[in-house]
Formats: sequence, structure tokens, C-alpha cells
Amino acid sequence: MDAIIISIGTELTTGQCLDTNASWLAEQLSDHGARILRHVTVTDNVDHIATCFREAMKEADMVIATGGLGPTPDDLTREALAIALDKPLETDQAALRQLEAFFARLERSMPPANVCQAMRPQGCEILPNPRGTAPGISHSSSSGHFFILPGVPSEMRAMFQQSIEPLIAQLATGARTARSRLLVFGISEAKLGELLSDLMNPGRSPSVGTSAADGVISVRIVARGESESDARRLLAADVDEVRSRLGDSVFGEGEDTLADAVGSMLLEQGLTVATAESCTGGLIAKHLTDVPGSSGYFIEGFVLYHNSAKTDRLGIPREIINQKGAVSEPVARAMAESCRGISGCDFSISTTGIAGPDGGHPPDKPVGLVYVGLAWEAQTEVRRLLLGDHLTRDEVRDRACKTALNMLRLRLIESQGRP
Amino acid sequence: MDAIIISIGTELTTGQCLDTNASWLAEQLSDHGARILRHVTVTDNVDHIATCFREAMKEADMVIATGGLGPTPDDLTREALAIALDKPLETDQAALRQLEAFFARLERSMPPANVCQAMRPQGCEILPNPRGTAPGISHSSSSGHFFILPGVPSEMRAMFQQSIEPLIAQLATGARTARSRLLVFGISEAKLGELLSDLMNPGRSPSVGTSAADGVISVRIVARGESESDARRLLAADVDEVRSRLGDSVFGEGEDTLADAVGSMLLEQGLTVATAESCTGGLIAKHLTDVPGSSGYFIEGFVLYHNSAKTDRLGIPREIINQKGAVSEPVARAMAESCRGISGCDFSISTTGIAGPDGGHPPDKPVGLVYVGLAWEAQTEVRRLLLGDHLTRDEVRDRACKTALNMLRLRLIESQGRP
Repeated sequence: MDAIIISIGTELTTGQCLDTNASWLAEQLSDHGARILRHVTVTDNVDHIATCFREAMKEADMVIATGGLGPTPDDLTREALAIALDKPLETDQAALRQLEAFFARLERSMPPANVCQAMRPQGCEILPNPRGTAPGISHSSSSGHFFILPGVPSEMRAMFQQSIEPLIAQLATGARTARSRLLVFGISEAKLGELLSDLMNPGRSPSVGTSAADGVISVRIVARGESESDARRLLAADVDEVRSRLGDSVFGEGEDTLADAVGSMLLEQGLTVATAESCTGGLIAKHLTDVPGSSGYFIEGFVLYHNSAKTDRLGIPREIINQKGAVSEPVARAMAESCRGISGCDFSISTTGIAGPDGGHPPDKPVGLVYVGLAWEAQTEVRRLLLGDHLTRDEVRDRACKTALNMLRLRLIESQGRP
Repeated sequence: MDAIIISIGTELTTGQCLDTNASWLAEQLSDHGARILRHVTVTDNVDHIATCFREAMKEADMVIATGGLGPTPDDLTREALAIALDKPLETDQAALRQLEAFFARLERSMPPANVCQAMRPQGCEILPNPRGTAPGISHSSSSGHFFILPGVPSEMRAMFQQSIEPLIAQLATGARTARSRLLVFGISEAKLGELLSDLMNPGRSPSVGTSAADGVISVRIVARGESESDARRLLAADVDEVRSRLGDSVFGEGEDTLADAVGSMLLEQGLTVATAESCTGGLIAKHLTDVPGSSGYFIEGFVLYHNSAKTDRLGIPREIINQKGAVSEPVARAMAESCRGISGCDFSISTTGIAGPDGGHPPDKPVGLVYVGLAWEAQTEVRRLLLGDHLTRDEVRDRACKTALNMLRLRLIESQGRP
């Protein structure tokens, strides 16, 4: 199956937005054994879009286009498809009713501009949008399949998974790919490269590669086989090998987060956690509550941004703050212990640090200095992080948050091992 | 000047790597007044690349391609250009000497595989690579300019800035571009399209386009003029016009956030804020403290995830929670008022809702129902949001957070207006 991916939008051709849709779609299609001939990105010009559609239909068995399905005058994809197919645009009554129902559920009246979103060229089908107002459009003929999806990534992905993936799975023939992404925190990419170097040899199959982003290292493993079970078997062997070499540094797979890993262990062990954050300003609580069902173990959080809040809410003595500074080991320790006591939780996490870009006092208190505390029944552990002033404010906060969650994760692995 | 951007590499067409080069180049070219006709991404197939080169040369005055200049067998861009131009490949002696010198500086001998990197089609020029081994290639004729740059982003950018940008600045026949992105929250994209429809007519100059992401609508304005000051003047007029039509819905420009807008007004007016979050789980505090200097107005936050925390920390009566439910108007109101009282802040924000995917009880309490409270001296305002179960958990939390910050922003605009 030969495929072409088309992205539509002047915000993309002028570089104002980075297109992530084409890459995501390409990966999905490749996984099903499709050969991607090319991606094309075109401006919001109805003739250019139509020409691009016609050429792609001639060459490929499957064309997927994204973008230009909104309700505003620069959304021209519906019209371009009508031109390319030489069919008039019609209102799809079922789609119109769905649109009206969408607004009714939100207790709003539908703006007149949205009516055009229920239109499609004659002979085309509507693809329902599980996440928004813009329906997609599909057209199938003896020469191939044509799909138009919305440009908003979350809507595009949901529509692809609901309406297109099942069809592709039917169409797919030939070599299959299985892939996995193991997620690692707490060791350097160089160290990881040493541990996995033989597996990463170019030309080896399955292929093993690493990439680092936001403090997390991804180990990507791609296996190819003659059948799906073949590919999966090869993949599973490599996943096991990598996991055994990296041990507890691996915290998850795919789209897992450290908070997911922590959450499932807390639930399993029937334990609870509370947070007392200064420099991370609510980020740890946010990460913990990103996880559905986190109300089963996350009880409450304090964001103690001002020093008065540290004293008023957790009773951190003013003298310690004055003597040692708010960014200090004793303050992180007292925050974690007091938060654990007040909340009555099994664990408590604390942070205090200098996120920058200002407020650093080198050499003792540079930007990027963070103390992370973890209190549990037996003990309180405090780690001093020197994250470096080459990191941005966001990065300092992100690494402090991930280090805190990882400390809790490692502690939970240990407590899991106890009788 | 019409331009086409071509990215070469099977790792791009299969979605294993995200292409950031095309977007970066597009922005540079647009800034110099070039009109980008399209981006194309092709596989490492010499015939496909050559065909793509030929078509692009026919249509555009300038073609920039990236990738496929390395020393390995899948680097086919040199050969493809030779086919497209119908010229033989030759070794460039100066480039070969530079390659040899590059390795000598690293005290290594040059691997034989690298020799091919000094080759170029007859009649082409070599572009030096300030950052690596792969030289670029250029070809100019009466019909236009063709450039090939390496795929490694840092090498590509350095080569563009050194060798291509000066030429483009010369070629730019006066036409310059100035651009702005206004950020809007609180009205629908359809409504916005109605308000701006005449400005968005295709072909109008400056061009005005909209795109929506994460609940925020961007209005992109691109003005072209004969000189930079000309373009800026045209841009400023349109920015003023759009701002006057959209009023207080515009919260910023460029990369501004709602928290930035709120923060600068709080600082200016010498006011403080605290948060009491349930369903947003620390996200509002996180957004507020994303802003450097937020310690000047953000004092503290409570994350009251468990109902016991709502009662223990803020004294929300258990009876209200039992009678009305934790997700209710009176609880949001009591949370905001109590948080304001305890913290002593001028403003307090509260949220309570059902972020999903589970926990909804339609029709009264569906997923996506959120109450957002804002308390200040004179009054407490509570808004009921029906965000809809089509949104993900992340999206429900994000929209609730942005709505809360926007309520505070609008309040601050009002209070600013008071004598």
C-alpha cells in the first residue's frame, strides 16, 4: 500500500507552527506496513490544495490530508476536495444534526459559521469527530482511499484511531513492524549507551536507538517480521534484554509518566501521598493528579511560595528560614515532615529551590539549586540537586519534579520488596 | 520570490524523526518576503528525489533541500541532483582538501567513505560546512537558485546563515514581511471568524488567519511592504483593527500566556492571589508560578483533592459537601472565600469539577462539569463550565485553569479602570 500525507495550512508553510501531524500519521501507517511516498505541506490556497489532491490520488492507494476543516473563511479543504473530485458540495444532514447536538450538549447555540462544517462533496462520507466540531471526510473508489482529518492534533488522532485504523488493518499485507519505547530516568545517556552499545550497532535487527528529552531517555526498539507474531516475538526478546540491563532505571513504556508509575504502586500498596512545594509551585501535585484515579492515593498539596506560607501553613520556624535560608536542607526536611504529619499521609514530598532566571546567589545558592525531600514513617531523605544555570526555569522545575517522583518510585520499589 | 522546501530522508517519511528543518527554513524565508509554495518530504530513493527536484525547479525561483549528504549508502541527494540537472558528478578538489583538513584537526585519518562528500554535479558550487563534514551544494541559473544543506539541524542552520541568507537579502526585491500573532481567549473560533471575516478574505493584504490550539485562538497577521518600515506600518494598522474588534478577548501577543497577562496586572496594581484547587490539582498554581517574578503576587496555593482536605484545610462544612456534592456551586464559592480569608490575599481562585474520564454522573454531573470561583473584596463570582465529555482529562483541566485565569484577568481590567 502506497500512501501520501498532506498537511494544509499557511501557518505550516510559513513556519509559524510546527507540523507534528504528518510525522504521527506516518508512524501509524508504517506500523501497518504502508510505504509512505512523501509528505506535502501546502498553503491555504484552494487551487494549490486541489492540485495537490489530484496528483496524490493518481500516485497513491491512500491519501490522508489534515487541516483546513474549521469554520473560518481560511478553511478551504472541503472546497478543494470538491474541485479535485469535480463534485458539488452538499450539506450532510446527519452531520448537521450531530453538530447541533454537540452545541446543545454544551448548552450553547450553534454559531451560523459552523454550518459549513457539515458540508462534504457529493459521494463522500462524513467521519465523526469524537473530540470537536469539525467532522472528517472520506472518499473511496477503485483507485484508492482519500481521508481528510482535522488539523487539531488531539482531534486528528482520535478520528484516525476510530475511523481509519480499522480499515488500514484490513488493507495491510506483507512485512509487519512491532515497536516499543522504554522510558528511563536517573542515568545519563552516555552511561546508557555503554550498557546497550552492542544492541545499538547499525544494521542489527531489531534496531535499538536512544534519544533524550526533558530529562527522560527513550530506548526505541523496532522489530520487523514476516508476520505480526513474528515481529512481536523478536521485540519481546529485546525488551526483556534491555530491561534486565537497565534495572530499576526503567520506569515505564510508551507514553507512561513517572506519576503513572508512582500511582500504580501507591494504589497497589494502599498508600497515600501529600505534597509541600515551593519552587515547583504545584507542578508535582499537577503531575500526580494528571493520572485518572489519583484521588485513590493523592490527598492534598500545599504550594508554599511565600516564606510566610511556609511558616503559617506548616509551622516551619522563622529562625530556620532566617538562618539557613528558604532554599536549604533543613527547610526541605521540615517541609516534608510537617506536611506528612498534618496530612496524615504515608509519604510526603517537598521542594525548595531557585528556578531562575533571577534570584541566584552563586557560589552557595546558584540558579538551579533545589532541595527535594521525601518523608515516610522510618526516615526523611533530602537530595540536593545542582541542575545548572544552563537550564531554563521550566526545565529546572521539571527536573526537580521528576527527581521527586523518582525518589518516591524507588522507595516504593524497595517497600514492595519487604515482607 | 516563490520558494519550495524539500526534506529528504526515510526516517522523516516514516515518522521516526520529526522534521524541524522545513519549519525553521520557512520562517527564515518568509521573513525575507519569500512566498513558500509548499514543503515536500521524500524518502531516500534516488529517482523520487530527482523527480521532486525537477518539479520544484520548474515551479519555484528558489529551492532549498535538506538531508542525504552524509557518507553512508543511503545518502543519495548528490546523485539525485546530478540526475535532475543531467550533469555528471565530479570531485571538488577544494572541498576534498577541506574535508581532509577537518579530519586532520581532529587528529584522525579520513575514512574512505567520506570522499564522496566532496562530490558535486558539474557546474555546481560547494557550500562550506562550519559545523561538520558534509558540505552543501548550490546551483544557480537564469531560472532560479537551488541549495542543498545537511539534515543535521545545527549544521543546516549555520550553513544557511553563512551562505544563503546574505544572498536572499540581496535577492529580496524590496518586499519585506512583518508578522504578529494575537492571542484570544473566551470566544469561539466561529464567532471570531464572523468578527474578522472581511479581514480574512483570501488575497487581502495583510493576510489575517486564525488557528485554535488548547482553547486559545491565535490570530496571525502577516504584512508585506516594500521596506521593513512599510511592512511594520501595515502590520500595526491591522493589529490595531483586530484588537479594537476583539476587545478584552485579546490577552497577549506572540508567546504570552494568560498567567503572564494576569501577573503583570497584579504586579502593576500591587495585588496578591492565592489558589484553592480540586480538579485542576495544582495546575493553576503551576501556571501562575511559571512566570519569573511570580513571588511578587502569588502567595500560596491549596490542592484539596480529597474531600477531607477541603474540610480540614479550608473549613468547608461537611454538610454542604454531603448535600450539594463536592462538585457544586456552593463548594466552589466557599473554597474561594475561605482561601481568600486564610491567605489574606486580595484575590482567590477555586476549582471543583469532574475531569474524567470516569466519575461522571450525567445528566446532573457529567464529565467536564467544572465550577470556577473567584473571590475578591466586594464579591465572589462562580462560573459553571460544561466542557463536554469529548475533551480529555488534560483538556478539561487545562480549560478550567485558563477560564479561572481569564476571570481574574477580566476582573483586573475592570479594577484597573476604577479611579
